[in-house]
Amino acid sequence: MSINASESVYETLQCELDERSYPIYVGELGVAGVAENKVMQANEPGLAVISQQLTKFVGGKQVAVITNETVAPLYLQSLLEALEDYQVDVYKLPDGEEYKTLESYNQVMDFLLKARHNRSTCLIALGGGVIGDLCGFVAATFQRGVDFIQIPTTLLAQVDSSVGGKTAVNHPEGKNMIGAFYQPKAVLADTSVLATLPPREFAAGLAEVIKYGVIDGDDFFTWLEEHIEDLVRRDTAALRYVIIRSCAVKAEIVSGDEREHGRRAILNFGHTFGHAIEKLSGYGSWLHGEAVAIGMVMAATLASRIAGFPARDVKRLSDLLEASGLPSAPEPNALDAGAMIDAMGMDKKVLDGNMRFIIPKNLGDIYVDASVPREALDAVLAEFL
Amino acid sequence: MSINASESVYETLQCELDERSYPIYVGELGVAGVAENKVMQANEPGLAVISQQLTKFVGGKQVAVITNETVAPLYLQSLLEALEDYQVDVYKLPDGEEYKTLESYNQVMDFLLKARHNRSTCLIALGGGVIGDLCGFVAATFQRGVDFIQIPTTLLAQVDSSVGGKTAVNHPEGKNMIGAFYQPKAVLADTSVLATLPPREFAAGLAEVIKYGVIDGDDFFTWLEEHIEDLVRRDTAALRYVIIRSCAVKAEIVSGDEREHGRRAILNFGHTFGHAIEKLSGYGSWLHGEAVAIGMVMAATLASRIAGFPARDVKRLSDLLEASGLPSAPEPNALDAGAMIDAMGMDKKVLDGNMRFIIPKNLGDIYVDASVPREALDAVLAEFL
Repeated sequence: MSINASESVYETLQCELDERSYPIYVGELGVAGVAENKVMQANEPGLAVISQQLTKFVGGKQVAVITNETVAPLYLQSLLEALEDYQVDVYKLPDGEEYKTLESYNQVMDFLLKARHNRSTCLIALGGGVIGDLCGFVAATFQRGVDFIQIPTTLLAQVDSSVGGKTAVNHPEGKNMIGAFYQPKAVLADTSVLATLPPREFAAGLAEVIKYGVIDGDDFFTWLEEHIEDLVRRDTAALRYVIIRSCAVKAEIVSGDEREHGRRAILNFGHTFGHAIEKLSGYGSWLHGEAVAIGMVMAATLASRIAGFPARDVKRLSDLLEASGLPSAPEPNALDAGAMIDAMGMDKKVLDGNMRFIIPKNLGDIYVDASVPREALDAVLAEFL
Repeated sequence: MSINASESVYETLQCELDERSYPIYVGELGVAGVAENKVMQANEPGLAVISQQLTKFVGGKQVAVITNETVAPLYLQSLLEALEDYQVDVYKLPDGEEYKTLESYNQVMDFLLKARHNRSTCLIALGGGVIGDLCGFVAATFQRGVDFIQIPTTLLAQVDSSVGGKTAVNHPEGKNMIGAFYQPKAVLADTSVLATLPPREFAAGLAEVIKYGVIDGDDFFTWLEEHIEDLVRRDTAALRYVIIRSCAVKAEIVSGDEREHGRRAILNFGHTFGHAIEKLSGYGSWLHGEAVAIGMVMAATLASRIAGFPARDVKRLSDLLEASGLPSAPEPNALDAGAMIDAMGMDKKVLDGNMRFIIPKNLGDIYVDASVPREALDAVLAEFL
């Protein structure tokens, strides 16, 4: 991938995946430029950016915006103005992970077909990870695949869903059990929209950023330690830097393993524990990023027992998460070790029944371990639960 | 692609699609070898073939067979014997196009997740086009994609679904509106299973074969004219030849245009009219192949008006279809011209509102025409309706 800095208030990361490479624009793009009731000047630079980028990637005459009831009042208006020359239909879902289901998928399909969208339509996902994953899966399978553009409106979605092409819906038996690998035509990650994010959601996004710090190595991790206060107060330049760098780390890994046969699994650092925590606590009581934060500390602790990961770095990780406003351990006595083991067994990173853990030996040096000794796992669970 | 003839009773066509190339085995493979209640000898060659081919492509320990209530009593037993070393779970759908729905898709997903199939499972589609399309779409999207093997049990599925990776389910607004492009690991097209096909279904498969004759050119078309009686009495060698040749014609076109952006559309010869006929007659009153047969004669007639397609070849096509036991025109006064136009408008081959027709100039020389004059279309409809 390449990063093109420019004098403008945004940067472009080209995500190279064979013939399906696409740009990620990061910075002040104008998505937040026209909040409800605000009168926008026609020549305001923000709106110009979003218009120019959007229309470059819409191939036909039809656009369908998939969004939710929380995001729509904030940012839909600017999008509609940028798309005034197109047939635009809007579908709003209620806000929440509980709507990332096959039922919502069916409803969006009905909506598209009744509005007579055809194979040259372009879908736009305007929202967080739920909207991005659902809209992406619809795009992957509507008439066997149509174009889509992502406008992620949470930090988590900007650093996580922007790269990698994972789309999915949940199933009562597990998260993301039904989905596809499918790449967007472009991603517009507008740092301005992060100003309105609730603090817990913002911190949950930082958990994924910190995960990329562990994966990338000491240089990025140290940068995060040094700038965590800038990030917490949502400094635009700091945000632009970490979004670009996180996406670049992810893109480098994904481009070598697009369909997650091997190395891509290291992106799941913290997720084996994290998904089990989410599942057992009931989806929604912890945010995904919060559960991953706890999961990373548990995985790092496991790594310190079996792979020589320095205890000092477990502490640095835990401190950085806490400085971000994130939990670094489960609530006392909230989870049962046996239930955790069982919940991890259904995690889809299981291959033929062996639990796989993503284990750092050092910051920046991570591997997939399918033969973690049960005693080591039990010891970590006993320490945390 | 390459065709490897051998001394055995089957041939192999390698379908080359980038890194996703896969073999199609055509001939006597043993799928029909163990009908219900028949005692199979362990060293019968048929069973050996199917065992050997199947186990070569099953990567993990789990297999899920998706089939229907008509096919299962005939062929499931041989499959289970060939897979005795695996965890095999079987899901049977009722037989019929009306079950090719998102509801069935949801049910198969529930079944797989409750039986704890994981990402290394292998799905086997044992049945006709409905089972193949549905199972393929499940395989494309179960945990973002798992392996699958096709064992098509109708002639139509053997010559049509074996190549091209189109998977889908229907929607009340139209056929195949929800799906994905996804390639199998292998296809086992057993000519023996065709012996039990009802005559109408067999003829419907011949309609697609004849379509490949029109696409490929005079040489294959003449071969079909000369051997139509062998085919109608289901001669094994003749069937093996036309299945291999039809798949080869399709593979050559698909490999140049996997996602149907251009030339692949010529495979839809006869389908613009055909889909409209199916839709207006009510799905199920005509078989797909029968509707396509009528559609091909209508498209050829249109071609003779606007593109110089020889009237003599329209007659040859019509005669060959009739010799196959197929209709070559709609029932008199059964369809309304205006309704036909409207039904063709929703066909998903429509790009931005222009109806596209697949028009032969000669046998073997076909193009996509998005600007057919309305008068020519009206004249053809008037002639046939």
